[in-house]
Amino acid sequence: MNKILVFGHQSPDTDAITSAITFSHLQNELGKETEAVALGETTDETNYALNYFGVTAPRVITTAAEETQEVMLVDHNESQQSVPDIDKVKILAVVDHHRIANFQTANPLFYRAEPVGCTNTIIFKLFKENNVDIPKHIAGLMLSAIISDTLLLKSPTCTKEDENVAEELAKLAGVELEAYGKALLKAGTDTSSKNADMILNDDAKNFPMGNLTVRIGQVNVVDVDEILVRKQELLEEMASQSDANAIDLFILLVTDVLNSDSIAIVYGDEQAEVSKAFNKEITDATMVLKGVVSRKKQVVPPLTAQFK
Amino acid sequence: MNKILVFGHQSPDTDAITSAITFSHLQNELGKETEAVALGETTDETNYALNYFGVTAPRVITTAAEETQEVMLVDHNESQQSVPDIDKVKILAVVDHHRIANFQTANPLFYRAEPVGCTNTIIFKLFKENNVDIPKHIAGLMLSAIISDTLLLKSPTCTKEDENVAEELAKLAGVELEAYGKALLKAGTDTSSKNADMILNDDAKNFPMGNLTVRIGQVNVVDVDEILVRKQELLEEMASQSDANAIDLFILLVTDVLNSDSIAIVYGDEQAEVSKAFNKEITDATMVLKGVVSRKKQVVPPLTAQFK
Repeated sequence: MNKILVFGHQSPDTDAITSAITFSHLQNELGKETEAVALGETTDETNYALNYFGVTAPRVITTAAEETQEVMLVDHNESQQSVPDIDKVKILAVVDHHRIANFQTANPLFYRAEPVGCTNTIIFKLFKENNVDIPKHIAGLMLSAIISDTLLLKSPTCTKEDENVAEELAKLAGVELEAYGKALLKAGTDTSSKNADMILNDDAKNFPMGNLTVRIGQVNVVDVDEILVRKQELLEEMASQSDANAIDLFILLVTDVLNSDSIAIVYGDEQAEVSKAFNKEITDATMVLKGVVSRKKQVVPPLTAQFK
Repeated sequence: MNKILVFGHQSPDTDAITSAITFSHLQNELGKETEAVALGETTDETNYALNYFGVTAPRVITTAAEETQEVMLVDHNESQQSVPDIDKVKILAVVDHHRIANFQTANPLFYRAEPVGCTNTIIFKLFKENNVDIPKHIAGLMLSAIISDTLLLKSPTCTKEDENVAEELAKLAGVELEAYGKALLKAGTDTSSKNADMILNDDAKNFPMGNLTVRIGQVNVVDVDEILVRKQELLEEMASQSDANAIDLFILLVTDVLNSDSIAIVYGDEQAEVSKAFNKEITDATMVLKGVVSRKKQVVPPLTAQFK
């Protein structure tokens, strides 16, 4: 087998999983032989979307080079967020909406990034530009990703373009945007069955900042107290994982998806620096971040600036 | 003044100069306030195109940060090919057709790269996607860049898309493609009035490869002998510049634009490695490269692989 593999980042969220599926669908319609795969198991939220639109979860891979020479990346570009042997394969294409860093190729490639709220908003445009029809289940997965990444169009990363695309996709998918969106987000916020490791890492990424490795996880809830009551358990797990994986600073962003606020649980020696970065006090390892919902736009930039 | 500056790479060729002008025009039509500038003087070839279509050469800048906070890059992304203080400004957008390397941002951005022969082929698509009319002089400059980068559609970097776009642009610009193309290329090949420094550096770029800094210049001619008779003069200049600028390997690619072949003049201690990279003998600092016309596609990749 020698299909081109298409995948999103490690600890995949709904956009990482579905953009692999939707971009692979587009590429296959354009005559390429591709397969959507994943760098981790799907979350409850993603499973809700996959079940709703009758799509099977992509198989999980831990290596790319053993089965292909060519890959396409969606929803990420940084090598430390990708498959471990990314340096052994040729990257043909990237579709992403994040900053570009720790990314390098030997050859020209197709790279499409736009500062929008969701990778699938860009993939929607690629379908249009290439005059490829969007089937109902693909539209439904794209819509789910936009809802997930923009917290139902309320995140500061959400652009007018994401809104317009979401409305058009809701029609194609045959769902009512607001009702489907709330059900999807609610499906993703049940933390009662999750252990500390899952809460920390189901949607977590490493960011090199200065000399430090900063790991930032994010968990969406409808009530932050359900996480705060487990703070001691979470801090112990953060301590053990930081030690095992050479993480200098571990932050868990607990985001109230209905009110669009977050609290951060902070583990590591750099508490004073983190406090300075946000100009907020850290009390008992906890920092209140009113109006903060976007890791990419509201958490990574002030930390990057502080540790530069 | 606080306009967004738009510019191509150092030692600008026709694509670097004109893509700044055409992309700036598009951005202004879309409501941004931008100005096309350049990181070096225009070549004879570029001047021919600018004169033909009645466009003034962009002013040359040596710093961006002193006059703006925001820039857009065309026809390059690698920091060592850009303005020296690129790390002090925010990169809003990149349109390019090269590999991605030594490039990093703190924030999401617009990045559009495609593996086509010319940046202006991508910019043409951006005009279409945004429903912006292409005026005659802008079409003429775009066409000139495609002719220049693809050596009148004969370079191996040239794609079917470049060909189709060039034909459409020739109509918009009101010129006959073949006749205008030959006149443009001929205008760029007069080396009689150039000193050794100009021949080496008018279109030269540095590439970090392994631990080495490799500088590769390219000069287009209709007869390679006009350069070969000056080999001693050129090697002396390469020696002096390598010494002054910590260049480990300096290669001048002399390309016969009518026959689509090149010879390379090679200066530096790594002659044996260069010989291995291309599987060709180097005699008296000269290597014959039949069918080689593209630095990006036929010269940089084998060298990068050899020095990895």
